[in-house]
Amino acid sequence: MHVATVIGSVWATQKDPSLQGLRFLVVRPFTTDGKESAETMIAADPIGAGIGERVLVVHGRAARHVIGHGHDIGFQTAIAGIIDRMDLADGRVIGPHVDFDSEQD
Amino acid sequence: MHVATVIGSVWATQKDPSLQGLRFLVVRPFTTDGKESAETMIAADPIGAGIGERVLVVHGRAARHVIGHGHDIGFQTAIAGIIDRMDLADGRVIGPHVDFDSEQD
Amino acid sequence: MHVATVIGSVWATQKDPSLQGLRFLVVRPFTTDGKESAETMIAADPIGAGIGERVLVVHGRAARHVIGHGHDIGFQTAIAGIIDRMDLADGRVIGPHVDFDSEQD
Amino acid sequence: MHVATVIGSVWATQKDPSLQGLRFLVVRPFTTDGKESAETMIAADPIGAGIGERVLVVHGRAARHVIGHGHDIGFQTAIAGIIDRMDLADGRVIGPHVDFDSEQD
Amino acid sequence: MHVATVIGSVWATQKDPSLQGLRFLVVRPFTTDGKESAETMIAADPIGAGIGERVLVVHGRAARHVIGHGHDIGFQTAIAGIIDRMDLADGRVIGPHVDFDSEQD
Repeated sequence: MHVATVIGSVWATQKDPSLQGLRFLVVRPFTTDGKESAETMIAADPIGAGIGERVLVVHGRAARHVIGHGHDIGFQTAIAGIIDRMDLADGRVIGPHVDFDSEQD
Repeated sequence: MHVATVIGSVWATQKDPSLQGLRFLVVRPFTTDGKESAETMIAADPIGAGIGERVLVVHGRAARHVIGHGHDIGFQTAIAGIIDRMDLADGRVIGPHVDFDSEQD
Repeated sequence: MHVATVIGSVWATQKDPSLQGLRFLVVRPFTTDGKESAETMIAADPIGAGIGERVLVVHGRAARHVIGHGHDIGFQTAIAGIIDRMDLADGRVIGPHVDFDSEQD
Repeated sequence: MHVATVIGSVWATQKDPSLQGLRFLVVRPFTTDGKESAETMIAADPIGAGIGERVLVVHGRAARHVIGHGHDIGFQTAIAGIIDRMDLADGRVIGPHVDFDSEQD
Repeated sequence: MHVATVIGSVWATQKDPSLQGLRFLVVRPFTTDGKESAETMIAADPIGAGIGERVLVVHGRAARHVIGHGHDIGFQTAIAGIIDRMDLADGRVIGPHVDFDSEQD
Protein backbone atom coordinates (compact mmCIF):
# COMPACT_ATOMS: atom_id res chain seq x y z
CA MET A 1 0.00 0.00 0.00
CA HIS A 2 1.32 3.50 -0.88
CA VAL A 3 0.59 7.10 -0.08
CA ALA A 4 0.18 9.03 -3.35
CA THR A 5 -0.86 12.51 -4.42
CA VAL A 6 -3.85 13.02 -6.75
CA ILE A 7 -2.47 14.91 -9.80
CA GLY A 8 -5.29 14.57 -12.33
CA SER A 9 -8.39 12.89 -13.73
CA VAL A 10 -8.85 10.57 -16.70
CA TRP A 11 -11.89 9.74 -18.80
CA ALA A 12 -12.38 6.85 -21.25
CA THR A 13 -15.54 6.16 -23.25
CA GLN A 14 -14.16 3.11 -25.06
CA LYS A 15 -13.49 0.68 -22.23
CA ASP A 16 -14.33 -2.66 -20.65
CA PRO A 17 -17.96 -2.67 -19.45
CA SER A 18 -16.88 -3.39 -15.86
CA LEU A 19 -15.24 0.06 -15.79
CA GLN A 20 -18.55 1.82 -16.45
CA GLY A 21 -19.62 4.31 -13.79
CA LEU A 22 -16.26 4.45 -12.03
CA ARG A 23 -14.28 7.62 -11.40
CA PHE A 24 -10.58 7.37 -12.31
CA LEU A 25 -7.88 9.60 -10.84
CA VAL A 26 -4.23 9.99 -11.82
CA VAL A 27 -1.99 9.50 -8.75
CA ARG A 28 1.74 9.93 -8.20
CA PRO A 29 3.58 7.91 -5.48
CA PHE A 30 4.76 10.04 -2.54
CA THR A 31 8.57 10.12 -2.22
CA THR A 32 10.47 11.30 0.86
CA ASP A 33 13.17 13.19 -1.03
CA GLY A 34 10.72 15.73 -2.46
CA LYS A 35 11.64 14.82 -6.05
CA GLU A 36 8.45 14.15 -8.01
CA SER A 37 8.30 10.59 -9.39
CA ALA A 38 7.66 10.58 -13.14
CA GLU A 39 5.65 7.39 -12.69
CA THR A 40 1.85 7.62 -12.45
CA MET A 41 -0.91 5.15 -11.71
CA ILE A 42 -4.62 5.28 -12.46
CA ALA A 43 -6.80 4.49 -9.45
CA ALA A 44 -10.53 3.95 -9.22
CA ASP A 45 -11.90 6.35 -6.60
CA PRO A 46 -14.97 5.33 -4.55
CA ILE A 47 -14.06 7.82 -1.81
CA GLY A 48 -14.25 11.17 -3.65
CA ALA A 49 -10.67 12.46 -3.40
CA GLY A 50 -9.74 15.79 -4.98
CA ILE A 51 -6.72 17.12 -6.89
CA GLY A 52 -3.72 17.60 -4.56
CA GLU A 53 -5.07 15.33 -1.86
CA ARG A 54 -2.88 12.59 -0.32
CA VAL A 55 -4.49 9.18 -0.64
CA LEU A 56 -3.90 5.54 0.36
CA VAL A 57 -3.62 3.44 -2.84
CA VAL A 58 -4.15 -0.33 -2.90
CA HIS A 59 -3.82 -2.98 -5.64
CA GLY A 60 -5.20 -6.37 -6.67
CA ARG A 61 -7.67 -8.11 -4.36
CA ALA A 62 -7.57 -5.20 -1.88
CA ALA A 63 -8.54 -2.77 -4.65
CA ARG A 64 -11.43 -4.97 -5.80
CA HIS A 65 -12.69 -5.12 -2.19
CA VAL A 66 -12.58 -1.32 -1.85
CA ILE A 67 -14.53 -0.85 -5.11
CA GLY A 68 -17.11 -3.40 -4.02
CA HIS A 69 -18.12 -4.71 -7.46
CA GLY A 70 -16.95 -8.28 -6.82
CA HIS A 71 -13.83 -9.94 -8.24
CA ASP A 72 -14.81 -10.16 -11.92
CA ILE A 73 -13.76 -6.68 -12.98
CA GLY A 74 -11.23 -5.22 -15.39
CA PHE A 75 -9.03 -3.13 -13.06
CA GLN A 76 -6.91 -3.51 -9.96
CA THR A 77 -5.88 -0.19 -8.40
CA ALA A 78 -8.07 1.87 -6.05
CA ILE A 79 -8.07 4.65 -3.46
CA ALA A 80 -8.78 3.19 0.02
CA GLY A 81 -8.61 6.44 2.00
CA ILE A 82 -7.60 10.10 2.25
CA ILE A 83 -4.90 10.71 4.86
CA ASP A 84 -5.41 13.20 7.68
CA ARG A 85 -1.75 13.39 8.50
CA MET A 86 1.57 11.52 8.14
CA ASP A 87 4.25 12.23 10.77
CA LEU A 88 7.78 11.41 9.62
CA ALA A 89 10.73 10.72 11.94
CA ASP A 90 12.66 13.59 10.32
CA GLY A 91 10.14 16.08 11.80
CA ARG A 92 7.99 16.67 8.75
CA VAL A 93 4.22 16.50 8.96
CA ILE A 94 2.70 15.52 5.60
CA GLY A 95 -0.83 16.90 5.40
CA PRO A 96 -3.98 15.71 3.63
CA HIS A 97 -3.21 18.08 0.73
CA VAL A 98 0.04 19.19 -0.96
CA ASP A 99 -0.58 22.72 0.35
CA PHE A 100 -0.71 21.70 4.02
CA ASP A 101 2.72 20.16 4.72
CA SER A 102 4.62 21.52 7.71
CA GLU A 103 7.28 20.80 10.33
CA GLN A 104 6.28 19.16 13.66
CA ASP A 105 5.95 21.81 16.43
CA MET B 1 -3.50 0.27 -13.56
CA HIS B 2 -1.41 2.50 -15.88
CA VAL B 3 -1.89 4.81 -18.80
CA ALA B 4 0.47 3.74 -21.60
CA THR B 5 1.09 4.67 -25.23
CA VAL B 6 0.80 2.05 -27.98
CA ILE B 7 4.22 2.01 -29.73
CA GLY B 8 4.05 -1.17 -31.82
CA SER B 9 2.66 -4.61 -32.62
CA VAL B 10 4.10 -8.08 -32.03
CA TRP B 11 3.39 -11.42 -33.71
CA ALA B 12 4.33 -14.92 -32.52
CA THR B 13 3.50 -18.15 -34.33
CA GLN B 14 5.21 -20.43 -31.83
CA LYS B 15 3.25 -19.82 -28.63
CA ASP B 16 1.01 -21.29 -25.95
CA PRO B 17 -2.32 -22.39 -27.49
CA SER B 18 -4.26 -20.06 -25.15
CA LEU B 19 -2.63 -17.09 -26.96
CA GLN B 20 -4.12 -18.11 -30.30
CA GLY B 21 -6.34 -15.50 -31.95
CA LEU B 22 -5.30 -12.64 -29.67
CA ARG B 23 -3.87 -9.33 -30.87
CA PHE B 24 -0.73 -8.17 -29.01
CA LEU B 25 0.41 -4.58 -28.83
CA VAL B 26 3.66 -3.09 -27.50
CA VAL B 27 2.92 -0.38 -24.91
CA ARG B 28 5.14 2.09 -23.07
CA PRO B 29 4.12 3.47 -19.62
CA PHE B 30 3.17 7.17 -19.69
CA THR B 31 5.55 9.33 -17.61
CA THR B 32 4.85 12.89 -16.50
CA ASP B 33 8.35 14.22 -17.16
CA GLY B 34 8.10 13.65 -20.92
CA LYS B 35 11.13 11.33 -20.90
CA GLU B 36 10.26 8.12 -22.73
CA SER B 37 10.57 5.05 -20.48
CA ALA B 38 12.82 2.39 -22.06
CA GLU B 39 10.59 -0.26 -20.49
CA THR B 40 7.86 -1.86 -22.63
CA MET B 41 5.06 -4.30 -21.92
CA ILE B 42 3.09 -6.54 -24.26
CA ALA B 43 -0.67 -6.26 -23.81
CA ALA B 44 -3.47 -8.33 -25.30
CA ASP B 45 -5.88 -5.95 -27.03
CA PRO B 46 -9.58 -6.84 -27.20
CA ILE B 47 -10.53 -3.17 -27.74
CA GLY B 48 -8.81 -2.37 -31.05
CA ALA B 49 -6.33 0.35 -30.08
CA GLY B 50 -4.01 1.87 -32.70
CA ILE B 51 -0.39 3.00 -32.77
CA GLY B 52 0.07 6.25 -30.78
CA GLU B 53 -3.15 5.85 -28.81
CA ARG B 54 -3.19 6.24 -25.01
CA VAL B 55 -4.62 3.17 -23.32
CA LEU B 56 -5.52 1.87 -19.83
CA VAL B 57 -3.39 -1.23 -19.11
CA VAL B 58 -4.33 -3.82 -16.47
CA HIS B 59 -2.58 -6.93 -15.15
CA GLY B 60 -3.34 -10.32 -13.57
CA ARG B 61 -6.95 -11.19 -12.76
CA ALA B 62 -8.19 -7.84 -14.16
CA ALA B 63 -6.47 -8.58 -17.49
CA ARG B 64 -7.97 -12.07 -17.68
CA HIS B 65 -11.43 -10.56 -17.05
CA VAL B 66 -10.99 -8.00 -19.85
CA ILE B 67 -9.91 -10.71 -22.34
CA GLY B 68 -12.86 -12.87 -21.34
CA HIS B 69 -11.32 -16.30 -22.01
CA GLY B 70 -11.54 -17.47 -18.39
CA HIS B 71 -8.67 -17.78 -15.91
CA ASP B 72 -6.76 -20.68 -17.50
CA ILE B 73 -4.72 -18.70 -20.00
CA GLY B 74 -1.05 -18.03 -20.57
CA PHE B 75 -0.85 -14.22 -20.25
CA GLN B 76 -1.69 -11.49 -17.78
CA THR B 77 -1.56 -7.99 -19.33
CA ALA B 78 -4.40 -6.41 -21.32
CA ILE B 79 -5.78 -3.11 -22.63
CA ALA B 80 -8.98 -2.21 -20.72
CA GLY B 81 -9.76 1.08 -22.50
CA ILE B 82 -8.65 3.94 -24.74
CA ILE B 83 -8.58 7.29 -22.91
CA ASP B 84 -10.53 10.27 -24.17
CA ARG B 85 -8.59 12.73 -22.10
CA MET B 86 -6.38 13.05 -19.01
CA ASP B 87 -6.31 16.45 -17.25
CA LEU B 88 -3.20 17.01 -15.12
CA ALA B 89 -2.98 19.51 -12.24
CA ASP B 90 -0.03 21.21 -14.00
CA GLY B 91 -2.38 22.36 -16.79
CA ARG B 92 -1.58 19.76 -19.40
CA VAL B 93 -4.34 17.89 -21.21
CA ILE B 94 -3.14 14.47 -22.37
CA GLY B 95 -5.18 13.40 -25.39
CA PRO B 96 -6.27 10.00 -26.72
CA HIS B 97 -3.30 10.05 -29.12
CA VAL B 98 0.29 11.30 -28.80
CA ASP B 99 -0.48 13.94 -31.46
CA PHE B 100 -3.36 15.52 -29.51
CA ASP B 101 -1.76 16.73 -26.26
CA SER B 102 -2.37 20.36 -25.32
CA GLU B 103 -2.54 22.88 -22.47
CA GLN B 104 -5.85 23.43 -20.63
CA ASP B 105 -7.63 26.58 -21.99
CA MET C 1 9.49 -10.13 1.85
CA HIS C 2 11.67 -7.12 2.76
CA VAL C 3 13.42 -5.67 5.76
CA ALA C 4 12.35 -2.03 6.17
CA THR C 5 12.82 0.74 8.70
CA VAL C 6 9.81 2.38 10.38
CA ILE C 7 10.07 6.12 9.57
CA GLY C 8 6.63 7.43 10.53
CA SER C 9 2.93 6.98 11.23
CA VAL C 10 -0.13 7.84 9.14
CA TRP C 11 -3.76 8.48 10.10
CA ALA C 12 -6.84 8.54 7.85
CA THR C 13 -10.40 9.18 9.02
CA GLN C 14 -11.96 8.97 5.55
CA LYS C 15 -11.20 5.38 4.52
CA ASP C 16 -12.61 2.00 3.56
CA PRO C 17 -14.48 0.47 6.54
CA SER C 18 -12.17 -2.58 6.51
CA LEU C 19 -9.27 -0.30 7.51
CA GLN C 20 -11.00 0.76 10.73
CA GLY C 21 -9.07 0.01 13.92
CA LEU C 22 -5.76 -0.74 12.19
CA ARG C 23 -2.49 1.04 12.96
CA PHE C 24 -0.57 2.19 9.87
CA LEU C 25 3.17 2.84 9.80
CA VAL C 26 5.34 4.43 7.10
CA VAL C 27 8.24 2.10 6.22
CA ARG C 28 11.29 2.54 4.00
CA PRO C 29 12.99 -0.49 2.35
CA PHE C 30 16.42 -1.31 3.80
CA THR C 31 19.23 -0.89 1.24
CA THR C 32 22.76 -2.27 1.62
CA ASP C 33 24.54 0.80 0.24
CA GLY C 34 23.38 3.04 3.09
CA LYS C 35 21.63 5.43 0.69
CA GLU C 36 18.07 6.04 1.90
CA SER C 37 15.47 4.95 -0.66
CA ALA C 38 13.02 7.75 -1.47
CA GLU C 39 10.30 5.13 -1.85
CA THR C 40 7.96 4.47 1.09
CA MET C 41 5.21 1.95 1.78
CA ILE C 42 2.35 2.01 4.27
CA ALA C 43 2.07 -1.16 6.32
CA ALA C 44 -0.62 -2.27 8.73
CA ASP C 45 1.05 -3.10 12.05
CA PRO C 46 -0.47 -5.79 14.28
CA ILE C 47 2.87 -6.29 16.09
CA GLY C 48 3.43 -2.86 17.68
CA ALA C 49 6.66 -1.69 16.03
CA GLY C 50 8.13 1.72 16.89
CA ILE C 51 9.84 4.49 14.93
CA GLY C 52 13.37 3.46 13.86
CA GLU C 53 12.74 -0.24 14.30
CA ARG C 54 13.68 -2.72 11.56
CA VAL C 55 10.69 -4.82 10.49
CA LEU C 56 9.79 -7.70 8.14
CA VAL C 57 7.23 -6.43 5.60
CA VAL C 58 4.94 -8.76 3.62
CA HIS C 59 2.39 -8.18 0.85
CA GLY C 60 -0.80 -9.66 -0.60
CA ARG C 61 -2.12 -12.91 0.84
CA ALA C 62 0.72 -13.07 3.40
CA ALA C 63 -0.21 -9.59 4.68
CA ARG C 64 -3.87 -10.51 4.99
CA HIS C 65 -2.89 -13.60 7.00
CA VAL C 66 -0.74 -11.53 9.38
CA ILE C 67 -3.56 -9.03 9.98
CA GLY C 68 -6.01 -11.84 10.59
CA HIS C 69 -9.20 -10.14 9.37
CA GLY C 70 -9.85 -12.60 6.55
CA HIS C 71 -9.31 -11.99 2.81
CA ASP C 72 -12.07 -9.42 2.18
CA ILE C 73 -10.17 -6.32 3.22
CA GLY C 74 -9.00 -3.16 1.53
CA PHE C 75 -5.22 -3.34 2.01
CA GLN C 76 -2.29 -5.63 1.29
CA THR C 77 0.91 -4.67 3.13
CA ALA C 78 1.69 -5.61 6.74
CA ILE C 79 4.48 -5.93 9.31
CA ALA C 80 5.11 -9.65 10.06
CA GLY C 81 7.90 -9.20 12.61
CA ILE C 82 10.56 -7.01 14.22
CA ILE C 83 14.10 -8.25 13.54
CA ASP C 84 16.51 -9.04 16.38
CA ARG C 85 19.53 -8.95 14.14
CA MET C 86 20.67 -9.26 10.51
CA ASP C 87 24.25 -10.45 9.91
CA LEU C 88 25.64 -9.47 6.49
CA ALA C 89 28.53 -11.22 4.73
CA ASP C 90 30.44 -7.90 4.61
CA GLY C 91 30.75 -7.96 8.43
CA ARG C 92 27.95 -5.58 9.30
CA VAL C 93 25.40 -6.45 11.98
CA ILE C 94 22.09 -4.67 11.34
CA GLY C 95 20.27 -4.24 14.65
CA PRO C 96 16.58 -4.11 15.59
CA HIS C 97 16.75 -0.29 15.54
CA VAL C 98 18.62 2.22 13.35
CA ASP C 99 20.67 3.23 16.41
CA PHE C 100 22.06 -0.28 17.07
CA ASP C 101 23.97 -1.20 13.92
CA SER C 102 27.56 -2.40 14.38
CA GLU C 103 30.39 -4.47 12.90
CA GLN C 104 30.64 -8.19 13.70
CA ASP C 105 33.23 -8.84 16.50
CA MET D 1 3.83 -9.71 -20.12
CA HIS D 2 7.25 -8.73 -21.51
CA VAL D 3 9.39 -9.38 -24.53
CA ALA D 4 12.82 -10.56 -23.37
CA THR D 5 15.98 -11.93 -24.95
CA VAL D 6 17.32 -15.37 -23.98
CA ILE D 7 20.90 -14.78 -22.71
CA GLY D 8 21.73 -18.07 -21.00
CA SER D 9 20.79 -21.34 -19.34
CA VAL D 10 20.79 -22.37 -15.68
CA TRP D 11 20.96 -25.79 -14.02
CA ALA D 12 20.17 -26.71 -10.39
CA THR D 13 20.37 -30.20 -8.91
CA GLN D 14 19.39 -29.15 -5.39
CA LYS D 15 15.88 -27.79 -5.88
CA ASP D 16 12.20 -28.16 -5.03
CA PRO D 17 10.84 -31.44 -6.46
CA SER D 18 8.23 -29.57 -8.53
CA LEU D 19 11.10 -28.06 -10.57
CA GLN D 20 12.32 -31.49 -11.69
CA GLY D 21 12.39 -32.05 -15.46
CA LEU D 22 11.95 -28.37 -16.37
CA ARG D 23 14.32 -26.40 -18.59
CA PHE D 24 15.33 -22.97 -17.20
CA LEU D 25 16.57 -20.10 -19.33
CA VAL D 26 18.08 -16.76 -18.30
CA VAL D 27 16.16 -13.89 -19.95
CA ARG D 28 16.77 -10.15 -20.08
CA PRO D 29 13.86 -7.68 -20.54
CA PHE D 30 13.86 -5.95 -23.95
CA THR D 31 14.34 -2.18 -23.69
CA THR D 32 13.65 0.31 -26.47
CA ASP D 33 16.72 2.46 -25.85
CA GLY D 34 19.14 -0.34 -26.79
CA LYS D 35 20.81 -0.20 -23.36
CA GLU D 36 21.00 -3.72 -21.92
CA SER D 37 19.12 -4.03 -18.62
CA ALA D 38 21.33 -5.50 -15.88
CA GLU D 39 18.27 -7.24 -14.49
CA THR D 40 17.66 -10.90 -15.40
CA MET D 41 14.85 -13.35 -14.76
CA ILE D 42 14.81 -17.15 -14.84
CA ALA D 43 11.97 -18.57 -16.91
CA ALA D 44 10.80 -22.15 -17.30
CA ASP D 45 10.77 -22.98 -21.03
CA PRO D 46 8.23 -25.49 -22.36
CA ILE D 47 8.56 -24.06 -25.90
CA GLY D 48 12.23 -24.76 -26.69
CA ALA D 49 13.67 -21.27 -27.17
CA GLY D 50 17.37 -20.81 -27.97
CA ILE D 51 20.07 -18.34 -26.95
CA GLY D 52 19.50 -14.91 -28.57
CA GLU D 53 15.84 -15.56 -29.34
CA ARG D 54 13.18 -13.00 -28.38
CA VAL D 55 10.48 -14.52 -26.20
CA LEU D 56 7.17 -13.61 -24.52
CA VAL D 57 7.60 -13.98 -20.73
CA VAL D 58 4.65 -14.39 -18.33
CA HIS D 59 4.40 -14.60 -14.54
CA GLY D 60 2.21 -16.05 -11.78
CA ARG D 61 -0.97 -17.88 -12.77
CA ALA D 62 -0.28 -17.34 -16.49
CA ALA D 63 3.14 -18.98 -16.12
CA ARG D 64 1.69 -21.96 -14.28
CA HIS D 65 -0.87 -22.40 -17.08
CA VAL D 66 1.84 -22.34 -19.77
CA ILE D 67 3.92 -24.98 -17.92
CA GLY D 68 0.87 -27.16 -17.47
CA HIS D 69 1.82 -28.88 -14.20
CA GLY D 70 -1.10 -27.47 -12.19
CA HIS D 71 -0.97 -24.69 -9.60
CA ASP D 72 0.98 -26.46 -6.84
CA ILE D 73 4.46 -25.78 -8.13
CA GLY D 74 7.49 -23.90 -6.87
CA PHE D 75 8.03 -21.29 -9.62
CA GLN D 76 6.16 -18.52 -11.40
CA THR D 77 7.91 -17.29 -14.56
CA ALA D 78 7.65 -18.98 -17.96
CA ILE D 79 8.18 -18.49 -21.71
CA ALA D 80 4.78 -18.37 -23.48
CA GLY D 81 6.05 -17.87 -27.04
CA ILE D 82 8.89 -16.96 -29.42
CA ILE D 83 8.16 -13.76 -31.39
CA ASP D 84 8.23 -13.72 -35.18
CA ARG D 85 8.47 -9.97 -35.37
CA MET D 86 7.81 -6.76 -33.42
CA ASP D 87 7.18 -3.59 -35.44
CA LEU D 88 7.86 -0.37 -33.52
CA ALA D 89 6.38 3.04 -34.39
CA ASP D 90 9.91 4.46 -34.74
CA GLY D 91 10.47 2.26 -37.82
CA ARG D 92 12.47 -0.52 -36.22
CA VAL D 93 11.58 -4.17 -36.83
CA ILE D 94 12.66 -6.35 -33.90
CA GLY D 95 13.26 -9.88 -35.16
CA PRO D 96 12.91 -13.31 -33.53
CA HIS D 97 16.64 -13.28 -32.77
CA VAL D 98 19.08 -10.52 -31.73
CA ASP D 99 20.88 -10.94 -35.06
CA PHE D 100 17.79 -10.22 -37.21
CA ASP D 101 16.73 -6.70 -36.22
CA SER D 102 16.24 -4.22 -39.07
CA GLU D 103 14.50 -1.02 -40.18
CA GLN D 104 11.03 -1.20 -41.76
CA ASP D 105 11.30 -1.01 -45.60
CA MET E 1 11.84 -16.16 -10.58
CA HIS E 2 15.33 -14.68 -10.00
CA VAL E 3 18.85 -15.87 -9.36
CA ALA E 4 20.16 -14.15 -6.22
CA THR E 5 23.22 -14.37 -4.00
CA VAL E 6 22.88 -15.17 -0.28
CA ILE E 7 24.51 -12.25 1.58
CA GLY E 8 23.32 -12.76 5.15
CA SER E 9 20.96 -14.19 7.76
CA VAL E 10 18.19 -12.54 9.77
CA TRP E 11 16.56 -13.50 13.06
CA ALA E 12 13.29 -12.21 14.57
CA THR E 13 11.81 -13.31 17.89
CA GLN E 14 8.78 -10.99 17.72
CA LYS E 15 6.95 -12.23 14.63
CA ASP E 16 3.78 -13.77 13.23
CA PRO E 17 3.34 -17.32 14.59
CA SER E 18 3.36 -18.78 11.06
CA LEU E 19 7.02 -17.68 10.73
CA GLN E 20 8.07 -19.85 13.68
CA GLY E 21 10.72 -22.46 12.89
CA LEU E 22 11.67 -21.03 9.51
CA ARG E 23 15.18 -20.02 8.50
CA PHE E 24 15.43 -16.59 6.83
CA LEU E 25 18.27 -15.53 4.54
CA VAL E 26 19.11 -12.12 3.09
CA VAL E 27 19.46 -12.36 -0.70
CA ARG E 28 20.59 -9.87 -3.34
CA PRO E 29 19.33 -10.14 -6.97
CA PHE E 30 22.03 -11.21 -9.45
CA THR E 31 22.79 -8.50 -12.04
CA THR E 32 24.71 -9.06 -15.27
CA ASP E 33 26.73 -5.83 -15.12
CA GLY E 34 28.58 -6.90 -11.95
CA LYS E 35 27.30 -3.85 -10.04
CA GLU E 36 25.84 -5.00 -6.72
CA SER E 37 22.15 -4.11 -6.38
CA ALA E 38 21.46 -2.19 -3.15
CA GLU E 39 18.09 -3.91 -2.97
CA THR E 40 17.73 -7.00 -0.73
CA MET E 41 14.96 -9.50 -0.11
CA ILE E 42 14.36 -11.87 2.79
CA ALA E 43 13.67 -15.43 1.71
CA ALA E 44 12.56 -18.42 3.73
CA ASP E 45 15.05 -21.23 3.13
CA PRO E 46 13.85 -24.85 3.29
CA ILE E 47 16.85 -26.02 1.17
CA GLY E 48 19.79 -25.08 3.42
CA ALA E 49 21.70 -22.56 1.31
CA GLY E 50 24.87 -20.93 2.66
CA ILE E 51 26.38 -17.44 2.51
CA GLY E 52 27.71 -16.66 -0.99
CA GLU E 53 25.65 -19.34 -2.69
CA ARG E 54 23.58 -18.55 -5.80
CA VAL E 55 19.93 -19.47 -5.33
CA LEU E 56 16.62 -19.53 -7.25
CA VAL E 57 14.16 -17.21 -5.47
CA VAL E 58 10.37 -17.44 -5.93
CA HIS E 59 7.46 -15.36 -4.66
CA GLY E 60 3.78 -15.64 -3.76
CA ARG E 61 2.00 -18.95 -4.37
CA ALA E 62 5.22 -20.57 -5.65
CA ALA E 63 7.01 -19.61 -2.42
CA ARG E 64 4.22 -21.02 -0.25
CA HIS E 65 4.40 -24.29 -2.23
CA VAL E 66 8.18 -24.55 -1.71
CA ILE E 67 7.83 -23.97 2.06
CA GLY E 68 5.07 -26.55 2.27
CA HIS E 69 3.11 -25.09 5.21
CA GLY E 70 -0.07 -24.46 3.23
CA HIS E 71 -1.38 -21.10 1.99
CA ASP E 72 -2.30 -19.50 5.33
CA ILE E 73 1.11 -18.13 6.23
CA GLY E 74 2.59 -14.69 6.80
CA PHE E 75 5.34 -14.56 4.13
CA GLN E 76 5.77 -14.90 0.39
CA THR E 77 9.42 -15.25 -0.68
CA ALA E 78 11.40 -18.50 -0.63
CA ILE E 79 14.50 -20.26 -1.98
CA ALA E 80 13.47 -22.97 -4.46
CA GLY E 81 16.97 -24.24 -5.35
CA ILE E 82 20.74 -23.73 -5.35
CA ILE E 83 22.16 -23.37 -8.87
CA ASP E 84 24.93 -25.65 -10.12
CA ARG E 85 25.84 -23.39 -13.00
CA MET E 86 24.52 -20.57 -15.18
CA ASP E 87 26.06 -20.21 -18.67
CA LEU E 88 25.67 -16.73 -20.17
CA ALA E 89 25.85 -15.94 -23.91
CA ASP E 90 28.74 -13.52 -23.25
CA GLY E 91 30.94 -16.49 -22.23
CA ARG E 92 30.70 -16.18 -18.49
CA VAL E 93 29.93 -19.21 -16.32
CA ILE E 94 28.24 -18.19 -13.07
CA GLY E 95 28.97 -20.80 -10.42
CA PRO E 96 27.01 -22.05 -7.39
CA HIS E 97 29.02 -19.68 -5.18
CA VAL E 98 30.39 -16.15 -5.69
CA ASP E 99 33.92 -17.57 -5.50
CA PHE E 100 33.46 -20.00 -8.43
CA ASP E 101 32.62 -17.78 -11.41
CA SER E 102 34.72 -18.28 -14.54
CA GLU E 103 34.83 -17.92 -18.33
CA GLN E 104 33.57 -20.74 -20.57
CA ASP E 105 36.51 -22.86 -21.87
